Amino acid sequence: MKVIIAGTGAMGATYGTNLALANNEVHFLDNWDTNINTIKENGLYLKNVDEDVTLKVNISKPEECNEAADLIIVFTKSMQLEHMMTQIQHLITKDTAILCLLNGLGHIDTLQKYVSKDNILMGVTVLTASMEGPGRFSTTAHGKTEIQNIAPNGLEKANQVAKALTNATLPCVVSQDILHSIWRCVNGTMNANCAILDCNMKQLGKLPHTNEILHHIVEEFAMVAQLEGVMLDVEDIYNYVMFFVSEEFSGVNHYPSMHQDLIKHHRNTEIDYLNGYVAKKAAEANLNAPYCTLITYYVHAKEQLLQNN
Amino acid sequence: MKVIIAGTGAMGATYGTNLALANNEVHFLDNWDTNINTIKENGLYLKNVDEDVTLKVNISKPEECNEAADLIIVFTKSMQLEHMMTQIQHLITKDTAILCLLNGLGHIDTLQKYVSKDNILMGVTVLTASMEGPGRFSTTAHGKTEIQNIAPNGLEKANQVAKALTNATLPCVVSQDILHSIWRCVNGTMNANCAILDCNMKQLGKLPHTNEILHHIVEEFAMVAQLEGVMLDVEDIYNYVMFFVSEEFSGVNHYPSMHQDLIKHHRNTEIDYLNGYVAKKAAEANLNAPYCTLITYYVHAKEQLLQNN
Repeated sequence: MKVIIAGTGAMGATYGTNLALANNEVHFLDNWDTNINTIKENGLYLKNVDEDVTLKVNISKPEECNEAADLIIVFTKSMQLEHMMTQIQHLITKDTAILCLLNGLGHIDTLQKYVSKDNILMGVTVLTASMEGPGRFSTTAHGKTEIQNIAPNGLEKANQVAKALTNATLPCVVSQDILHSIWRCVNGTMNANCAILDCNMKQLGKLPHTNEILHHIVEEFAMVAQLEGVMLDVEDIYNYVMFFVSEEFSGVNHYPSMHQDLIKHHRNTEIDYLNGYVAKKAAEANLNAPYCTLITYYVHAKEQLLQNN
Repeated sequence: MKVIIAGTGAMGATYGTNLALANNEVHFLDNWDTNINTIKENGLYLKNVDEDVTLKVNISKPEECNEAADLIIVFTKSMQLEHMMTQIQHLITKDTAILCLLNGLGHIDTLQKYVSKDNILMGVTVLTASMEGPGRFSTTAHGKTEIQNIAPNGLEKANQVAKALTNATLPCVVSQDILHSIWRCVNGTMNANCAILDCNMKQLGKLPHTNEILHHIVEEFAMVAQLEGVMLDVEDIYNYVMFFVSEEFSGVNHYPSMHQDLIKHHRNTEIDYLNGYVAKKAAEANLNAPYCTLITYYVHAKEQLLQNN
């Protein structure tokens, strides 16, 4: 399969490298010169689950690539997706499948501006990966990927992509209810709270009112999901997310990505695609989502405060 | 006038010293041994507005004091008021006026458990003072004090106390609407936001959504004030509090006391007497005050996180 990885960060590098190792033809795209040049010079280094690999790969800026592919996997930060789609428009043919595994909400709307519905595959992944520096990546577990075509016509493509990923040691299943999985958004409950309070998930789980805060957030997510035709059972989802702040969860000492973006790197966060998306959609429908709204205000406030320091 | 100052922190020291300088008989109470002993040994040092004074004063623990007074001014932190009232019960006669100038809401309920309504004077003050160390205090401006008897019978006492304070260079007027002044609570809008976001009032004023956050908080304060018979005009109060985050306010670089308590000293805050009071009273009346509620949750969360570090 000919695959383009649109965004060579931790996730893009891990998916792309494993697809390349399984004899797919992979072209990496990125917008960060230092990353591109390091990979061109030294190869792409991935501390993979079983062994380290350094791979010579094709990498370029989006505008320098001119080869169409069977599959484009977009792996930007949420707020960069729209810009990336404008950059890869010339690579999208009527047969190109686009797979989006990004965190957060609202991405289908963005993709549909650039791609026929029949070619859009949405997914969620629990694979964990990190970027150690330009051209250097690591992954600790190839957690399961779920994908689904958003239009009936896309089923064959979904099956092909799932098979290609699974063959590349990236276990993938075609889901019947990907919107439910996308909306069952653990990041919407963990990320902003850990960033605002400057704590990890274990600490969050031990705070006096975390259960009330998370329950309110889940209620607001469920309210807006329903507007989009997705039914969430509030108690089910609440119990599901509470697991991730319990000692039973092996990754409980983890600082979620928004904490890393905001507190560690003083970068803009994905809040507008998590709680901010719920706040915005609720407001548009004249509904109240005060928890998601205040959380979004606070995260944007901290972005400004920390970037001005 | 015979005066007991129940709580010798920055405010108590400033009021008590100025009353003593104006020939009132003042007895100071405190619960912090180091503070008491330093004042006993070295006198009470106050960097007053015009000149520094070091005064030999009477100071003791509450249980060591046995002299009744005409007036007791309570000057604890909000969360210590109830304990102080139990400690000074033996000093309260049927003629003792109690003046409470504490920040925050809910103190009348506490006082009424220990004192006849006729003897309770409530007030607000914009005097600024700080504690520089045990026995050492400073004040930069004797801003106006407003007081009012909460029962009609208390008017004569209010007039006497206002006169005594004014004579002691602490300008004081008897208000007709002290509940409105107490509820027009600038602290409820500034304190917790500056503490949660770790910023001063000037920075708060420049953040992208401060106007929305403060407006919602004022709406919730007004809703609960109305339950207690106090009518607040939301737009008036909103404009009033927005002044304090504007460049026009001379104290705009100030970090509110809750920021000092929480971020600087990792102490418990007065949140339960500000936004937490509104959240609690709203919940008791089956009303929603989500902004005050989430703010209270976050402040208690930060208390626990910072005290465990």
